[in-house]
Amino acid sequence: MSDALDTSALLLPPGPVDLSIIETDAAPGFAGKKKDGKAALAGLGDELADLQERLFAERSVGSERRILLVLQGMDTSGKGGTLRHTVGLVDPQGVRITSFKAPTDEEKQHDFLWRIRHAVPDAGTIGVFDRSHYEDVLVVKVHGWADAEEIERRYDAINAFERELADGGTTIVKCMLHLGVDEQKARLQERLDNPEKHWKYNPGDLDERALWPAYQRAYEIALERTNTDVAPWHVIPADKKWFRNLAIGHLLLEALRSLDLEWPSADFDVEHELRRLAESDPA
Amino acid sequence: MSDALDTSALLLPPGPVDLSIIETDAAPGFAGKKKDGKAALAGLGDELADLQERLFAERSVGSERRILLVLQGMDTSGKGGTLRHTVGLVDPQGVRITSFKAPTDEEKQHDFLWRIRHAVPDAGTIGVFDRSHYEDVLVVKVHGWADAEEIERRYDAINAFERELADGGTTIVKCMLHLGVDEQKARLQERLDNPEKHWKYNPGDLDERALWPAYQRAYEIALERTNTDVAPWHVIPADKKWFRNLAIGHLLLEALRSLDLEWPSADFDVEHELRRLAESDPA
Repeated sequence: MSDALDTSALLLPPGPVDLSIIETDAAPGFAGKKKDGKAALAGLGDELADLQERLFAERSVGSERRILLVLQGMDTSGKGGTLRHTVGLVDPQGVRITSFKAPTDEEKQHDFLWRIRHAVPDAGTIGVFDRSHYEDVLVVKVHGWADAEEIERRYDAINAFERELADGGTTIVKCMLHLGVDEQKARLQERLDNPEKHWKYNPGDLDERALWPAYQRAYEIALERTNTDVAPWHVIPADKKWFRNLAIGHLLLEALRSLDLEWPSADFDVEHELRRLAESDPA
Repeated sequence: MSDALDTSALLLPPGPVDLSIIETDAAPGFAGKKKDGKAALAGLGDELADLQERLFAERSVGSERRILLVLQGMDTSGKGGTLRHTVGLVDPQGVRITSFKAPTDEEKQHDFLWRIRHAVPDAGTIGVFDRSHYEDVLVVKVHGWADAEEIERRYDAINAFERELADGGTTIVKCMLHLGVDEQKARLQERLDNPEKHWKYNPGDLDERALWPAYQRAYEIALERTNTDVAPWHVIPADKKWFRNLAIGHLLLEALRSLDLEWPSADFDVEHELRRLAESDPA
């Protein structure tokens, strides 16, 4: 059956990580082609929307449950496209997207998790981090903006933070969009060739690209150190945009399914309210 | 041609307002039926998405322009449905929805515009207010939670605030979802009849419904007092959900069109970057 994706193929096993042996242009766990993948993603829409609404509804009876989707990846790996094509399948009322840029002066005055805590999703919602606290052990490490001891402290701080979130009712879905170095080149080329995409290009992107091996190594260490039971990592081959979208759609759906969401029961007397309504003709 | 909507039919003329003479189940400015209306809304999607991306792109070159869509209406008038079906047509990255509930204790310590200012959309984005500062001259007036003098002050404060936003680059689109009292009854009935919708029902909704005439009067005064050149009101007949969605889709599209959005020009040397990219093979 070509429309189901076995997401266990995306789950990062515990232990040391070697990204170089994980293909970036593969479609693990999915037997179909691009056309099948696009149809399969569209086919998830109704169930995603239904379960998201149930999650949102739960809040009205005091549930603290919520979902946090963390998207990490190199420039052009498709975090934005995922937001448009996958997160865009559910009701925007129930979604809160936070795009983390370089920290502001105020944010720099605080611990690296300070601004992250401000963006934690509300109960009943799906929060999405486009970049995240992981930048503080990735770009910061690659550029040497913090010393080794501080980076070490941060892995532990991240794990403690994510456990705290999980204990408080947050289902965490972490996705590393795993892009090939040649595919990044093609995508940057496209941004330069197409005047409508110039705004997405920044000369600094090539400076970061020059640091590719250091970034891959930083990712490997970060993935290994923060690949916990409560917040495991998924590595999503990201050269094929349709596969990336489908894979994350499935992970989001499975996170929602795992909550066994029921519509909340009425906390009022339905018959009584029906009688009150029948008698209400104010105008 | 049945797929275009003449939004001038929705614009509230200056002067005193009598909501009772504006039909709630009409489809002003649109010649088609429900099927045509749904197709017409879907047909707006590509241009909406394209222009929204241009607005978002402008921010990268320092533009301060943004859009604020204000949705006001009685319970069940369909603010949520509008968010799902109309606002959901554009990239969620570029949208920030704020649903205003009863003010918190902290919010009550401040002027009524304090929490509103915190929710003003960022440059380049479309902000949507699901309820708004208008609650402070509607529910507050109907229940007498502020005296007449304070309510008077607020109309002026709102106009000054909206002018300030407009001067700062915000295009404001204000929509009053004009629902019929019988249609509200039918929608509340549906929420009571369908257990999957019980969570949307609150016994307090009937208490508010009993105040319908007072609310209509408060709306009439608020609409009249805040129907300004920089932030005019639109009254959207809201009994037909498809019309409500289509009308607001058109108003959003026209707001975007009015900005004459162009893709930003490159602020770097494209040829130079292409050469740098060609030589970049870090891995």
